Amino acid sequence: MEDPTRREEADPEVRKRVQDSFDRQGLMAHLGARLSHIGPGRVHIVLPARPEVTQQHGYVHAGATSAIADSAGGYAAYTLFPADSEVLTVEYKINLLAPASGDHLEAVGTVLKSGRTLTVCGLEVFGVAADGTRRLVANGQQTLIRVDVKAP
Amino acid sequence: MEDPTRREEADPEVRKRVQDSFDRQGLMAHLGARLSHIGPGRVHIVLPARPEVTQQHGYVHAGATSAIADSAGGYAAYTLFPADSEVLTVEYKINLLAPASGDHLEAVGTVLKSGRTLTVCGLEVFGVAADGTRRLVANGQQTLIRVDVKAP
Amino acid sequence: MEDPTRREEADPEVRKRVQDSFDRQGLMAHLGARLSHIGPGRVHIVLPARPEVTQQHGYVHAGATSAIADSAGGYAAYTLFPADSEVLTVEYKINLLAPASGDHLEAVGTVLKSGRTLTVCGLEVFGVAADGTRRLVANGQQTLIRVDVKAP
Amino acid sequence: MEDPTRREEADPEVRKRVQDSFDRQGLMAHLGARLSHIGPGRVHIVLPARPEVTQQHGYVHAGATSAIADSAGGYAAYTLFPADSEVLTVEYKINLLAPASGDHLEAVGTVLKSGRTLTVCGLEVFGVAADGTRRLVANGQQTLIRVDVKAP
Repeated sequence: MEDPTRREEADPEVRKRVQDSFDRQGLMAHLGARLSHIGPGRVHIVLPARPEVTQQHGYVHAGATSAIADSAGGYAAYTLFPADSEVLTVEYKINLLAPASGDHLEAVGTVLKSGRTLTVCGLEVFGVAADGTRRLVANGQQTLIRVDVKAP
Repeated sequence: MEDPTRREEADPEVRKRVQDSFDRQGLMAHLGARLSHIGPGRVHIVLPARPEVTQQHGYVHAGATSAIADSAGGYAAYTLFPADSEVLTVEYKINLLAPASGDHLEAVGTVLKSGRTLTVCGLEVFGVAADGTRRLVANGQQTLIRVDVKAP
Repeated sequence: MEDPTRREEADPEVRKRVQDSFDRQGLMAHLGARLSHIGPGRVHIVLPARPEVTQQHGYVHAGATSAIADSAGGYAAYTLFPADSEVLTVEYKINLLAPASGDHLEAVGTVLKSGRTLTVCGLEVFGVAADGTRRLVANGQQTLIRVDVKAP
Repeated sequence: MEDPTRREEADPEVRKRVQDSFDRQGLMAHLGARLSHIGPGRVHIVLPARPEVTQQHGYVHAGATSAIADSAGGYAAYTLFPADSEVLTVEYKINLLAPASGDHLEAVGTVLKSGRTLTVCGLEVFGVAADGTRRLVANGQQTLIRVDVKAP
């Protein structure tokens, strides 16, 4: 597993493009998620643990865990795309390894292979306790497609 | 694909058990999702399309689509479990086939194989237009584990 | 699950194209697999159970089960492609539901969604006893990409 | 990605148990695969590129690539199991990232999470050229179950 503290920043233009797109995702705001790192080929998203994101036992719901993992991978891919393009998730697979609990979750999306059409990302989600202790709670793999946006 | 109009109901005790568990999922209420069918080995969940569940282009976010698919599969498995047990998602994989739009989404979880420890479900999500037209927007497969709850 | 006896045949030109490509797959011949049906968007492959394809307990190895499932899905997609194109597997996910045994296995690949670039297939593998009894032993989902071949 | 040269060996008893099980897999011998490393929670399998394992373009078939990846993950899990147990693959997902070519392939299975019942492994397959150059050609994730063998 890569060092989650490695924090090379993407170019300001790329970071602005990712942040602007993220801010248009109604779901991320509704869940209370926020971008915590935008690096080249690597994006982190934080989700505070709140009653609004739980499953029946009080842990964070697999659907919320997956939502931030999917977005982290999507934006990781997007950091390597040209400006006039969009990213769509083709598919992903995720294993829920441990009950997702803690002060907050942190999803890390990392580009494994960046192609002209398709990109493959690794997905990790950590449960982070109030004292900063981290535990891997989900691990996945995602395929994304780049869609070029035509000028009007 | 099975006929989504087939509507055999589960036993009242099972339906109550599923509904009670669903009502404890903070995420489902927060997303605005509700159970629309509880059959033996088959559960449907409806999610109205609202700005709170969108991605950056205004379609329903893959994370919200996945969340209802995951819950539909989990509860489909749960309908076949004994009363003193719980269900946990081990993993799932989902393909996003088309932009998820319409009046609402309907997720259908169907048990493909029910074993003593592990259950495998098929997951389908349809975008349903105001006129009732249905389109398959996501398709997946899920593995779940049964956890027996010890009496105190 | 669809009726595995439904047997609409693809056009002769398509069937020839699929058979020719299959015959160039060294692995299929080495495993002893053969095409048993080529329909539009649907391909079946049969694999006789032999010691050469087993795992450590004498059942058919997950790798052999997957190999015929992957090829069945790939050729199912290919039946819907134009003549001057190729098909590549992007990814697949497969659940091994039961020990793969019997006289032979039959893999069935079925196109779920056919797009201009990407195709998604459902994968099923049945263990077939000498008396014709069928049992689902594996179930999966696959993403494929169409690659257009340039004229020289 | 972890360093593929890290080569801590498992205990001799464990290595013997893994090698003996591998030697009972008819498919591995038939494909020409062999164990190249048995570490605690980590197993490597080498597959020479031969016409017997190809797809229609002469690259190694996704099915052969998957077969050695599945076995590498299965035996990686098995190294951490007690002696009187068996391992079965529940499911796996694999992305084919690049044409699988070279002198041989090397599959690396690594345990990500080892539980009492379920184990999750990461799967990597490298194409290795005659000069030793390595290229990641496939990447996946696998779920396995431990089955305790009863004394007779």
